[in-house]
Amino acid sequence: MNKNPIGIFDSGIGGLTVVKAVKKILPNEDIIYLGDTARLPYGTKSTDAIIQFSIEDTQFLVDRGAKYIVIACYSSASVALDIIRKKFSVPVIGVIEPGVRRALQLTKAGKIGVIGTSLTIFSGAYERAFKELGAQFEILGKACPLFVPLVEEGWFDHNATKLIAQDYLQPLKKDNVHTLLLGCTHYPLMMKIIREIMGDINYVDASTEVGVELAQSLDKLDMKNPSGAGDIGIYLTDLSMNFKEIGERFLGEPMKNFSRVSLKSTESAR
Amino acid sequence: MNKNPIGIFDSGIGGLTVVKAVKKILPNEDIIYLGDTARLPYGTKSTDAIIQFSIEDTQFLVDRGAKYIVIACYSSASVALDIIRKKFSVPVIGVIEPGVRRALQLTKAGKIGVIGTSLTIFSGAYERAFKELGAQFEILGKACPLFVPLVEEGWFDHNATKLIAQDYLQPLKKDNVHTLLLGCTHYPLMMKIIREIMGDINYVDASTEVGVELAQSLDKLDMKNPSGAGDIGIYLTDLSMNFKEIGERFLGEPMKNFSRVSLKSTESAR
Repeated sequence: MNKNPIGIFDSGIGGLTVVKAVKKILPNEDIIYLGDTARLPYGTKSTDAIIQFSIEDTQFLVDRGAKYIVIACYSSASVALDIIRKKFSVPVIGVIEPGVRRALQLTKAGKIGVIGTSLTIFSGAYERAFKELGAQFEILGKACPLFVPLVEEGWFDHNATKLIAQDYLQPLKKDNVHTLLLGCTHYPLMMKIIREIMGDINYVDASTEVGVELAQSLDKLDMKNPSGAGDIGIYLTDLSMNFKEIGERFLGEPMKNFSRVSLKSTESAR
Repeated sequence: MNKNPIGIFDSGIGGLTVVKAVKKILPNEDIIYLGDTARLPYGTKSTDAIIQFSIEDTQFLVDRGAKYIVIACYSSASVALDIIRKKFSVPVIGVIEPGVRRALQLTKAGKIGVIGTSLTIFSGAYERAFKELGAQFEILGKACPLFVPLVEEGWFDHNATKLIAQDYLQPLKKDNVHTLLLGCTHYPLMMKIIREIMGDINYVDASTEVGVELAQSLDKLDMKNPSGAGDIGIYLTDLSMNFKEIGERFLGEPMKNFSRVSLKSTESAR
């Protein structure tokens, strides 16, 4: 038993979809979330910068008593997971591997499609993860860079969104993808339109799978909190105009407890 | 006469459209450009952060001999222009006022429309600038947040782009806008599609107007370089995957001379 909170970080507020998924599966766990909004997006930064930022984000959460670290940022999970695991003594889970494992469980034949931002897809992180986990299937990655701004506009039913989704997804449909892995925190909100185009195939939402594996791991390590209130504390390194509106869309509930914080190295950069 | 370079900064590489416009009007001026790509976008940051970043960007260019500072970043020009002018002894021009002056010259009757990113529009910077310059017209601002990612995708002729542009611009057309001011570095690349929707009205490209006013000011201050080679030196605080491809789309020529640099306060943040 361990009553300390779970620490989750992302470059922005998209990782609140992971918070939502974890809370659904582990309602008694307290969660502290760090969104490094002062330096978002990580996806456009260099590998060195992403690693440095990820270390600082983890340190922030560990300093506040996090018993377990969830890397909800795809860019961080792509390039910094192993380094964070070596550098810190708390267990760490990234947002990539659980979805990959689930996709492999579900897929009996055919191809696996992965959609994400440009950096996630072109980094080859998913290809590597599938290879390491012994995938026998062809993996088709497709970058969908307009999905994030469309979600932030809230244009889920716009005709333009349908055209853009068709443009991005048609090649995967044509290739008879059997399982589609949603490899970006924002994409669960696009599920309806994605399903309209891709039809009755398997879907894997990486955020949900992180919650499932986190629950199993807490059980195994005897680190569950049986009696927590499920409090969510949100720390952001900068507060933009509409972070609350967009954040609550991701979190699926009101953001009650949030504050602006400085990371050690962002103090001079603010 | 002053043979030192003109210093231009932006949060990213979009400001290269300003470089292109300045070079066209002032082919003998050398230009040094700073894109603070490690901390882009400024638009989502707080006012305090944007001011701090803008001071550092200006200092970097002044340290390298800039004789004149052009703030090509709309977020910076919105909130930091006066502070930069007070803090530094070199002349400073922002990307907002020249376009506003030109729009006022062109408009004989009717309304003026301004399109830009959410922060530019909702900051009220354009309304303030129009008011200060004595505008007698109704000013209609419209945020078009999807235009930037569409330009970065290069989807200038996509049907989705047309639908999105229609959605954003139809209200301005319906309101009989007489002059449309393009208030974002990325938007000149959307000109064709904007013209298709808005038709035969006046268009003002802020980047071009900055170049025009800069040329007049250099003349007046006797600071022109009559014999420079028109060299462009590009400094970026981070190099992302596709900065060269997108940058050259904005610059309209190959990016030959670029380097990655650290600003004083970003050294620890990298």
